[in-house]
Amino acid sequence: MKKVESVIRPESFPALREKLDEVEVNGLTVSEVAGYGKQKGLEGVFRGTRYEIKLYPKVKVEMIVDEEQVDQIINLIKETCITGETGDGKIFIYPVENVIRIRTGEEGKEAII
Amino acid sequence: MKKVESVIRPESFPALREKLDEVEVNGLTVSEVAGYGKQKGLEGVFRGTRYEIKLYPKVKVEMIVDEEQVDQIINLIKETCITGETGDGKIFIYPVENVIRIRTGEEGKEAII
Amino acid sequence: MKKVESVIRPESFPALREKLDEVEVNGLTVSEVAGYGKQKGLEGVFRGTRYEIKLYPKVKVEMIVDEEQVDQIINLIKETCITGETGDGKIFIYPVENVIRIRTGEEGKEAII
Ligand SMILES: Nc1ncnc2c1ncn2[C@@H]1O[C@H](COP(=O)(O)OP(=O)(O)OP(=O)(O)O)[C@@H](O)[C@H]1O
Ligand SMILES: Nc1ncnc2c1ncn2[C@@H]1O[C@H](COP(=O)(O)OP(=O)(O)OP(=O)(O)O)[C@@H](O)[C@H]1O
Ligand SMILES: Nc1ncnc2c1ncn2[C@@H]1O[C@H](COP(=O)(O)OP(=O)(O)OP(=O)(O)O)[C@@H](O)[C@H]1O
Ligand SMILES: [Mg+2]
Ligand SMILES: [Mg+2]
Ligand SMILES: [Mg+2]
Repeated sequence: MKKVESVIRPESFPALREKLDEVEVNGLTVSEVAGYGKQKGLEGVFRGTRYEIKLYPKVKVEMIVDEEQVDQIINLIKETCITGETGDGKIFIYPVENVIRIRTGEEGKEAII
Repeated sequence: MKKVESVIRPESFPALREKLDEVEVNGLTVSEVAGYGKQKGLEGVFRGTRYEIKLYPKVKVEMIVDEEQVDQIINLIKETCITGETGDGKIFIYPVENVIRIRTGEEGKEAII
Repeated sequence: MKKVESVIRPESFPALREKLDEVEVNGLTVSEVAGYGKQKGLEGVFRGTRYEIKLYPKVKVEMIVDEEQVDQIINLIKETCITGETGDGKIFIYPVENVIRIRTGEEGKEAII
């Protein structure tokens, strides 16, 4: 199992949530975060004066899914969240060793189907 | 070391926090999240009309612990957070490569005792 | 690639953000969390009466970086966030399997430079 974590524009989330119905994603956790990517430097200097690095509000979306679903979900996020402007977001993939559904006690893949 | 991350009902957290005193958990990080599990589909359709997928408020609890503690903590979360209704929550286990206590510079297991 | 996640005092964050300009960190995600470390027990008892374990507000800072940068970033966080009092924070290191920049489709190290 893997965690597919994306940090995207808040305004992209409703479309992503809708698109996720087309694939077998049986769970998702969302949180409000803030951050910056590569452009911090460019925005930080103006006429020699250093400005505070700005933090942009973003939404973090976490989905723990089966390994076989990862590529499809990455493509879906890319399609849905791209505007072409800087700040569209990033996707991070992490290993997950186990999942437990508290209500039933199911573990592993059983717990994410 | 492992990260034991649970996403549970907000109302289950006080009891969990209390129970954790019984085991050797020397740290915990909590955040407010929202999400859905397997029931998104069921709740999303009514008389042929699609409704917005609802996001339920949940609490994410993260504990970085020694490998040997993982099973005990999973059992404790299961016991404390089960109501038997859908939405009780999930537990996710992730690998952790190192931990550093900033004040002392201790690393690894030393940093979580 | 690795995730360097630190949970620090909110008042330490501005200095850390500034210091990070000195190293090649091309992205960062921040969120508001609460937690406790090792002192939960000590603060929980007064004259035999158990008090609620307090949760202290903290800031979680996540940076997905190249493996080679990890030690330098750990040192920078330690230098910037240490006060010597309990509660300075922790640093957690996790494996990251892939990163994708949504705007360009770049993957892996390309996506974090
Ligand atoms: N290396 C990173 N570590 C942690 N979070 C990151 C990292 N890079 C980006 N982020 C998070 O993702 C959000 C969106 O990043 P962003 O899309 O600006 O990335 P970028 O690399 O600058 O790409 P672009 O050039 O398209 O803007 C940031 O606000 C931040 O929260
Ligand atoms: N696969 C997943 N990825 C990320 N977060 C998840 C996943 N599954 C569940 N969650 C998180 O856990 C919360 C609780 O999930 P929930 O208990 O409803 O799981 P479930 O699989 O639907 O089990 P149940 O049938 O008992 O409801 C969700 O609101 C969501 O935040
Ligand atoms: N094992 C842990 N798992 C998850 N989060 C933790 C853990 N330990 C600490 N934290 C998070 O880090 C924050 C700061 O921890 P803290 O600096 O108090 O650690 P400590 O081990 O008690 O060290 P000190 O003795 O210097 O206080 C906590 O409020 C909590 O959010
Ligand atoms: Mg950017
Ligand atoms: Mg459910
Ligand atoms: Mg402490």
